[in-house]
Amino acid sequence: MAEAGKIKIDLGPRSYWVHVRPGLMARTGPFLAEMFNTRRAIIITDSTVGALYTRPLQDSLRTAGLNVHAIAFPAGEEHKNLATYNVVMERLLGLNPPIDRRTMIVSLGGGVVGDLAGFVAATALRGVDFISLPTTLLAAVDASVGGKTGLDAQAGKNLVGAFHQPRLVLIDTTLLTTLPAAQLRNGLAECVKHAVVRDATLLNFIAEKAPAILAAQPGPLAELILRNVAIKAAIVSADEHEKSLRALLNFGHTLGHALETAAGYGGLSHGQAVSMGMVAACHIAAARGLMHATHAAKVRSVLESLKLPVRFADLPTLDAKARDFQALLPIMGRDKKAARGTVRWILPKGLGDAALFEDVKLEEVRKAIEYLNLS
Amino acid sequence: MAEAGKIKIDLGPRSYWVHVRPGLMARTGPFLAEMFNTRRAIIITDSTVGALYTRPLQDSLRTAGLNVHAIAFPAGEEHKNLATYNVVMERLLGLNPPIDRRTMIVSLGGGVVGDLAGFVAATALRGVDFISLPTTLLAAVDASVGGKTGLDAQAGKNLVGAFHQPRLVLIDTTLLTTLPAAQLRNGLAECVKHAVVRDATLLNFIAEKAPAILAAQPGPLAELILRNVAIKAAIVSADEHEKSLRALLNFGHTLGHALETAAGYGGLSHGQAVSMGMVAACHIAAARGLMHATHAAKVRSVLESLKLPVRFADLPTLDAKARDFQALLPIMGRDKKAARGTVRWILPKGLGDAALFEDVKLEEVRKAIEYLNLS
Repeated sequence: MAEAGKIKIDLGPRSYWVHVRPGLMARTGPFLAEMFNTRRAIIITDSTVGALYTRPLQDSLRTAGLNVHAIAFPAGEEHKNLATYNVVMERLLGLNPPIDRRTMIVSLGGGVVGDLAGFVAATALRGVDFISLPTTLLAAVDASVGGKTGLDAQAGKNLVGAFHQPRLVLIDTTLLTTLPAAQLRNGLAECVKHAVVRDATLLNFIAEKAPAILAAQPGPLAELILRNVAIKAAIVSADEHEKSLRALLNFGHTLGHALETAAGYGGLSHGQAVSMGMVAACHIAAARGLMHATHAAKVRSVLESLKLPVRFADLPTLDAKARDFQALLPIMGRDKKAARGTVRWILPKGLGDAALFEDVKLEEVRKAIEYLNLS
Repeated sequence: MAEAGKIKIDLGPRSYWVHVRPGLMARTGPFLAEMFNTRRAIIITDSTVGALYTRPLQDSLRTAGLNVHAIAFPAGEEHKNLATYNVVMERLLGLNPPIDRRTMIVSLGGGVVGDLAGFVAATALRGVDFISLPTTLLAAVDASVGGKTGLDAQAGKNLVGAFHQPRLVLIDTTLLTTLPAAQLRNGLAECVKHAVVRDATLLNFIAEKAPAILAAQPGPLAELILRNVAIKAAIVSADEHEKSLRALLNFGHTLGHALETAAGYGGLSHGQAVSMGMVAACHIAAARGLMHATHAAKVRSVLESLKLPVRFADLPTLDAKARDFQALLPIMGRDKKAARGTVRWILPKGLGDAALFEDVKLEEVRKAIEYLNLS
């Protein structure tokens, strides 16, 4: 369900709205005061975003009559772990006066902040409410919707977590238009993912508007976000706990997660990893005859037009083991979508359609990685 | 819903059975193999229980064709914290081959193990299934049913956690008949709690059978467990996430938790703390005219017949600050049931009935603590 500038995530009693428009951060206080029975908000953010936006967000909340605290942790994916979770959780629970079940957690930041703050909300006092203010395109179109929260473990990414839906998502497009291009590209990989698995017209939109989007023009950016949130909303509404349809959103992620792990945290952005993973998946799909080679080539060229990597040569600083099938294989097996030791892949069946395949042979994966090494 | 030796916990798609009979541990393998689509079981236990029972439980699971690992952490409430959670979680996720969503966690132990193993199951891969084999009376009649999982934080008990229902609970009464009397008493305090808030006839049963129960006679013990699980099942079915009715189970716990915290971990057993908390709550209820003084006296005398403490004089080694109203008050405020800074109490309205009261004055609490100090 969508209206101008907002989309409803339909999950019965856990439904919530995603608002997309400029200047929303300054409206957070009035939103909370109007919608929820809470007098207290705890902002969870990271050091980078917190330095920029904690003050104005606090002002908005305080002006609306709320008691506000802020907790910031060091920025970076390498801090999305159990150690940071412990520190943030003990700080939250040690606040005076103590938080209670009507306290609202306010997640302010990108995907790492949303995942960690959401998991803290899911597990403090066995679950308190949270709202999310994503500050990156990636968080806006992906992590902010759907209620997946989590942490990385030593053995792999996002292996610790819970499903916990936010009560409200406020996407302030003003914050996104000032993002550096590398940050934007991170989110654009997920937009291409949504297009390939569900909406071929979105792929055309991205291809056509690539320069405007990369220049962070407000109009195209807002339309892009709304279209992507709508796709994610439909998928999540149909399959909240990732039992079937939602698995499609792992398109590009089987290899993508393995590349990120092999590269070491910080060696590769999530968008770069997913871009490479999507090229590999399209290659396998084309080799199987599931999708036309011209369609696979189109996905690849859209990614290139967004300046996302489509071959290992585009990533000259990548660790050598991250290019190696033998090194990547055991990491793919550790992905939490693995069932009974087999590696599962989402493969496109043309543009705008995809499915889960459990019968992908190791030889097909090896050839796809070879393709990324050669092309 | 109850049949001979088993009770259904009715929670729609999350329903499960609690079986109560001798020798169930050796039947765990066949149960799992028959009921669930899993080939892999990870036993989570503590050092004490693990030394006694990991081997026979592993044998049962392996004989049924399951791949089995066991993870043990140091026994004791002081280890039910985020640090232990991190260690257990990283060990679980680091297993080779990696666990997947069809892996079954098997909780083997008392309340601490059940809470921690349940929370690990709730948050590994965003939730995997678990079954529970409680090895103490307290765990059997209380923690094993209802899906509350959690950890203690520096600021207080059970402040971190999630709701995550087990798929099956197997209460092997053979394990319980060998428990030391102090362990049994721990569980008996919760049985008295159930009786006072829901079932006056259970209070009579406990009063009558106290010597047989304390001697761990199999017949009375099994009946006691089944009656208590039935009460807990009815309450949990009506109110899974503790929004109303389930709060009654906090009878005796507002002061009880504060006493445990003030005494320091290990200074006081949970049953002792709850026993004192129930005496205090009955005192407040009698002073308000909610319950007859003779009924308050009956609760107190049943607790005494079970050799549970009903006055501070029964706890000569208790830290002095745990007897002091001024020291206890801020800890009660930190209890997670606190809302907007007020301390809420469950008070009996006679025998077999109770309600949540939000208007209990500090003076009433002070007098109840004075009563525990004087009587």
